[in-house]
Amino acid sequence: LEQEKTNGIQVILEELQPYDIAEIYVMLSEEQRPKFLDVLETEQQASLIEEIDRDEQLELVEQINVNDLGEVLDLMDNDDLAHLLDEVTPDVKEQYLSGMTTEESTAVQKLMEYEAETAGRIMTNRYVWIPEQYTVRETVDKLKIFAELAESINYIYVINNEKQLMGVVSYRDLILAEMDEKIEDIMFSRVISVPVEMDQEEVASIIERYDFLAIPVVEENNVLVGIITVDDIIDVVIQEANEDIEKLSATGKSIDFDTKVWIASYRRLPWLVLLLFVGLISGSIISQFEETLQKVVALSFFMPLISGMTGNTGTQSLAVVVRGIVGQEMNKAVVTRLILREFGVGALIGITCSILLFIIAYVWQGSLVLSFVVSSSLVFTLIIGTLAGTIIPLLLSKLKVDPAIASGPLITTLNDILSLLIYFKIATVFLHHLL
Amino acid sequence: LEQEKTNGIQVILEELQPYDIAEIYVMLSEEQRPKFLDVLETEQQASLIEEIDRDEQLELVEQINVNDLGEVLDLMDNDDLAHLLDEVTPDVKEQYLSGMTTEESTAVQKLMEYEAETAGRIMTNRYVWIPEQYTVRETVDKLKIFAELAESINYIYVINNEKQLMGVVSYRDLILAEMDEKIEDIMFSRVISVPVEMDQEEVASIIERYDFLAIPVVEENNVLVGIITVDDIIDVVIQEANEDIEKLSATGKSIDFDTKVWIASYRRLPWLVLLLFVGLISGSIISQFEETLQKVVALSFFMPLISGMTGNTGTQSLAVVVRGIVGQEMNKAVVTRLILREFGVGALIGITCSILLFIIAYVWQGSLVLSFVVSSSLVFTLIIGTLAGTIIPLLLSKLKVDPAIASGPLITTLNDILSLLIYFKIATVFLHHLL
Repeated sequence: LEQEKTNGIQVILEELQPYDIAEIYVMLSEEQRPKFLDVLETEQQASLIEEIDRDEQLELVEQINVNDLGEVLDLMDNDDLAHLLDEVTPDVKEQYLSGMTTEESTAVQKLMEYEAETAGRIMTNRYVWIPEQYTVRETVDKLKIFAELAESINYIYVINNEKQLMGVVSYRDLILAEMDEKIEDIMFSRVISVPVEMDQEEVASIIERYDFLAIPVVEENNVLVGIITVDDIIDVVIQEANEDIEKLSATGKSIDFDTKVWIASYRRLPWLVLLLFVGLISGSIISQFEETLQKVVALSFFMPLISGMTGNTGTQSLAVVVRGIVGQEMNKAVVTRLILREFGVGALIGITCSILLFIIAYVWQGSLVLSFVVSSSLVFTLIIGTLAGTIIPLLLSKLKVDPAIASGPLITTLNDILSLLIYFKIATVFLHHLL
Repeated sequence: LEQEKTNGIQVILEELQPYDIAEIYVMLSEEQRPKFLDVLETEQQASLIEEIDRDEQLELVEQINVNDLGEVLDLMDNDDLAHLLDEVTPDVKEQYLSGMTTEESTAVQKLMEYEAETAGRIMTNRYVWIPEQYTVRETVDKLKIFAELAESINYIYVINNEKQLMGVVSYRDLILAEMDEKIEDIMFSRVISVPVEMDQEEVASIIERYDFLAIPVVEENNVLVGIITVDDIIDVVIQEANEDIEKLSATGKSIDFDTKVWIASYRRLPWLVLLLFVGLISGSIISQFEETLQKVVALSFFMPLISGMTGNTGTQSLAVVVRGIVGQEMNKAVVTRLILREFGVGALIGITCSILLFIIAYVWQGSLVLSFVVSSSLVFTLIIGTLAGTIIPLLLSKLKVDPAIASGPLITTLNDILSLLIYFKIATVFLHHLL
């Protein structure tokens, strides 16, 4: 009876996508999960692992029968498996690898040698390759054998005896060709490939440009070592966009709707504490101009406006740089042109806003000198704020410093400090006119 | 001789990808472009149009020989063509459509009836469909005919006499099946499809979850009307990420490295001018507490710190909501849980930061009362700032207001105002102790 029930469940599960199976698994209680796992086929277990979150992956792997584990890990995509193995202790990693076939464990260990976020790290070895001498018929026969196992069969890669990538044949080409034609004659030989060490973001922008479903990855000498498929690229695009947004809002590591209170707080706190100290610098600048401020309290009315607008123009520039820097060759000409452009933008918006502010300040406070101090400060602070938001991230990326440092709040707070300095300096110069 | 040269160029061009041809075209001078266009085949012209920017598209289309234009437009993907036709006057649109085949012009006009950013707008009609009764052999034969024309041949869609979607067969299935098998027997019938009116961002998250290469689009009654391919989804993901970033940095319409000074300024100005006026509100709040401030100038030292941190915690929350709101069903339970979570986060970071600030303020200014005023204000402002950054975007999305309004700078500036109000209220209450 138990067996029949299991069979019934398996029939249902076979109709489901891996994502749906993962959704069911996540909803189950701690006690139900092992039973559910037992019902799954080895292949389903492998794709289930690929679909769930890192924390749950580790839990799940521990629940799988030790004898089956090697087989399950063999069936996992190498890039996903590498991510998983990164999280466990060397001992456990050794144990997991020992259960796998030599071929698969060598492949995943090789993958783990590449740096994080490079092409080598997200590629898969589940592609179909053929020697140059094959005919269409031989190719189709090989494809039949590998169709189930390969992650992508849209392109079949043609290699020579040295494993060098010589060409590519698409499924479309095979359909249209005669069975006796030689692959050499129908293959496309100007293959676009990426080197193993290329940054994943660059790979993404190449795939996006060319609308490829997969791209081959080569080592030096054009030796084919793997392919990157478009579904992994979507994940890369989302991941990189999230990183950019975290950079602009300084949330640090990602927080979503399900993150627990204390974890979300813990991830947000470091930045806020840092900003607290930077805010104290602003405070100490103001304290240095205590006398000026005491004499003309009205100066303080315009403080939030000036520092707020300067901070914002900096964030706007930062957003342009952060989004634009990828896939752009950042040579001297590009950088110079960008800085000049942003200088122009800063000047143009600075002049426009300060004319407006001059009129409003005069109507509000009735002092020509005060209006002049406030509006002339705004021109300078907006130009400097725009340039800071442009140059600082460029500099950090040039110095290969973790660009997360050039985050929105930091630019904002830095611009706060700069704008207060400029504002009070100008005010102090004109102080005797203000009294 | 001229003819031979043209043939030579064509041989080179045939080896290039559409993106590369577009790169060459963009680099050519105004005079060279028409000559280059003449060398291109109709198909190459069509894919060239798809690859270049909107402004250049319109220029290019005008340069194409009027007799060829219809054919070129016929060959373009419908979603790209619809975008193009959106930009021209009704007269020109009429003229372009009249040159096309009835079938293609009807299809593109139908596409244009769907709302922007929905599944219907990004789908293509270049898919392969077969009736249920087909055998594998008949399917492969049909595939041979349509392989060149179809945008995606990874999946073949099975429909009944009412054009309802009954199942899907992948290229993989065809390879593994016997030629005489019936499609009905090998097809997968639990097809995941999306309705025409679904938001493109939701479509993207479905494709991302299931790692599909294409997804069918259906009208009511499950009638198949098109498919959405993964390359369009990558564009959607990038576009939506850019929109989120524009939202957080209030750059308005997108600005990249090549945007001209005056256009970039024009796009950034509206927000800055709005922020100028909002900044004046902050100013007028401070001016209402002029007396308090005049008596205790030290209060102004902590203004940038308090408003800066409140602004930042709001932006952090905003980033979480903006990124998380997509693909999430925003029912009461989810919203309540999120608001409670953010309240907890606000309280936790508020208490932590204010303890720190209490100590620092006391060491710096030596006044217990001032330290108490400053640090207790920070608790309140951080909680309120966190909630504002959460609730305002949720509310706006509920009210279906253009969510761009809930941008980072607006939350920041609003939090500025709130934090100043709280700070000075508390300070005024304790004023007699501060003197």
